[in-house]
Amino acid sequence: MSSVEPAATASTALASALADTADAVEVLLDALLRDEPATGELHRPARLLAAMRHGALAGGKRLRPFLVAETAKLFGVPRERALRAGVAVELAHCYSLVHDDLPAMDDDEIRRGRPTVHKAFDDATAILAGDALLTLAFDVIAGPQTHPDGATRADIVLIFARALGLGGMAGGQMLDLAAEGRFDGESRPAALGEADIRRMQAMKTGALLAGSVLIGARLGQADAAQTAALERYGRALGAAFQVADDILDREASPEEMGKATAKDESRGKATLVTALGLAGAKRERDRLSEEAIAALAGFGPEAQMLRAAAEFTARRKS
Amino acid sequence: MSSVEPAATASTALASALADTADAVEVLLDALLRDEPATGELHRPARLLAAMRHGALAGGKRLRPFLVAETAKLFGVPRERALRAGVAVELAHCYSLVHDDLPAMDDDEIRRGRPTVHKAFDDATAILAGDALLTLAFDVIAGPQTHPDGATRADIVLIFARALGLGGMAGGQMLDLAAEGRFDGESRPAALGEADIRRMQAMKTGALLAGSVLIGARLGQADAAQTAALERYGRALGAAFQVADDILDREASPEEMGKATAKDESRGKATLVTALGLAGAKRERDRLSEEAIAALAGFGPEAQMLRAAAEFTARRKS
Repeated sequence: MSSVEPAATASTALASALADTADAVEVLLDALLRDEPATGELHRPARLLAAMRHGALAGGKRLRPFLVAETAKLFGVPRERALRAGVAVELAHCYSLVHDDLPAMDDDEIRRGRPTVHKAFDDATAILAGDALLTLAFDVIAGPQTHPDGATRADIVLIFARALGLGGMAGGQMLDLAAEGRFDGESRPAALGEADIRRMQAMKTGALLAGSVLIGARLGQADAAQTAALERYGRALGAAFQVADDILDREASPEEMGKATAKDESRGKATLVTALGLAGAKRERDRLSEEAIAALAGFGPEAQMLRAAAEFTARRKS
Repeated sequence: MSSVEPAATASTALASALADTADAVEVLLDALLRDEPATGELHRPARLLAAMRHGALAGGKRLRPFLVAETAKLFGVPRERALRAGVAVELAHCYSLVHDDLPAMDDDEIRRGRPTVHKAFDDATAILAGDALLTLAFDVIAGPQTHPDGATRADIVLIFARALGLGGMAGGQMLDLAAEGRFDGESRPAALGEADIRRMQAMKTGALLAGSVLIGARLGQADAAQTAALERYGRALGAAFQVADDILDREASPEEMGKATAKDESRGKATLVTALGLAGAKRERDRLSEEAIAALAGFGPEAQMLRAAAEFTARRKS
């Protein structure tokens, strides 16, 4: 096998590690989303549970749990703790997809090649399923299986909430909708400038990707310098991921993506592709990927998988 | 003033204590919902912040923070800690109102005499405002100002999540919508039996009211017997509150309630008023109120305000 290129070897190792995490995440999600009530719960309604399972057990790359697990691994955190925190992050990611797909939001009918939750069920059920997935995410991350030290768990809840809320993911979705000129009585804003696009994307996508890395760092009791370096990695990775997504929206087919594409242009959505052009966006994606890798300079070979994630996230085909 | 009845004195003291808590809650909510980003946040979008303020700063009885504070007071918990936890519970209550009012859910246009969030803004903004209020609730309750001990805070996050999620409030709203026969492809269920109505209400309303009491108990490091007694109090109070609400929906005017009334009957909604008749529902309300008071038998005069809350919750006029 000496003819295999180094890049291909790294790619194969990354694919294999991603698949291992995804399998473990699937098992944990399946076990969490069962009909036996947990302590303190009264009853789990079948329809809501089915909608949550539809929204959470649809496969996917499980990139966020992977980032939690690989970051935690730098510090020797037991894998089952990191996966538990990773599952919480994935639940929050799934909640955001369920709500973003709603007719009142992005109005998407297909996700990962299947009907979105509101199409498979209805809008009310999808709203509640998203709400309950978000709530379950906090339940899972605050639980004793995530970390034996309660103060660490409470810290992680705070990191998580800041990544998800008004000043993070939810705020980013608000800015994204506003940029589409969606709101009556508000004049359509001039096309967003590059700085506004970057901020919106840093909130909408970057905050939870960076949050995944920060949660892994906190699980590992990383020191301030390590945490700062990992945050730089996470934010650059998140930005690279989003530019890559915008490029795919322009270039990939719906079949490759498992969802509608070329939507950004038809909605007049401002992305770095519209701001920088396709070639400029590709250069920016590569620059961000290199920035992410450079942020890991203080870590040794144990960070190789995070470096590979930055490299291949920028080159992903779906 | 010797002609004032004891009940009227208790009522005045309760009204005054409720007003004190409501004022403190308003101040804390106002301070939390400002445009300066918190640590870890990137930017707070103005439209989303305004919608969150609309949904959270609309006045109201602030019964849940009152229950947290009065329960915590039994154990000598500093008031500022209890109010902080109470504000988190109120944020979660407000999130539930914002989402429940959506056209896809209960479709209400007026709440506390003002347009609901989706009427004042739009559906997408209301969905995001609810999401961000729920996220902020977890942020507030996990923060160091709620309790110095991290493990206590993590425990409280768990109690809170169980009260709010699939097996609590969100699940209760799902059962309530299902009982209205809302879902295509599912035959309209036979009118809910009394046990089903009680379970649905225990989840939809009771779980967060009981959760408020349990959070106060956990803040105060209550022992197992005290916690069990307080949980019985909270669940009976929650049930009494909901029957009283159903009675008011039948008897009060929209002006008195600050929202539409007589909706249950027009929607064919199953409540204890439909199951037991109006007189039977009133007897059940009084019985539950007495059950709540009886659960506090092990506490002394320091629980007088919780007893008064049970008594007057059952007799409330709005």
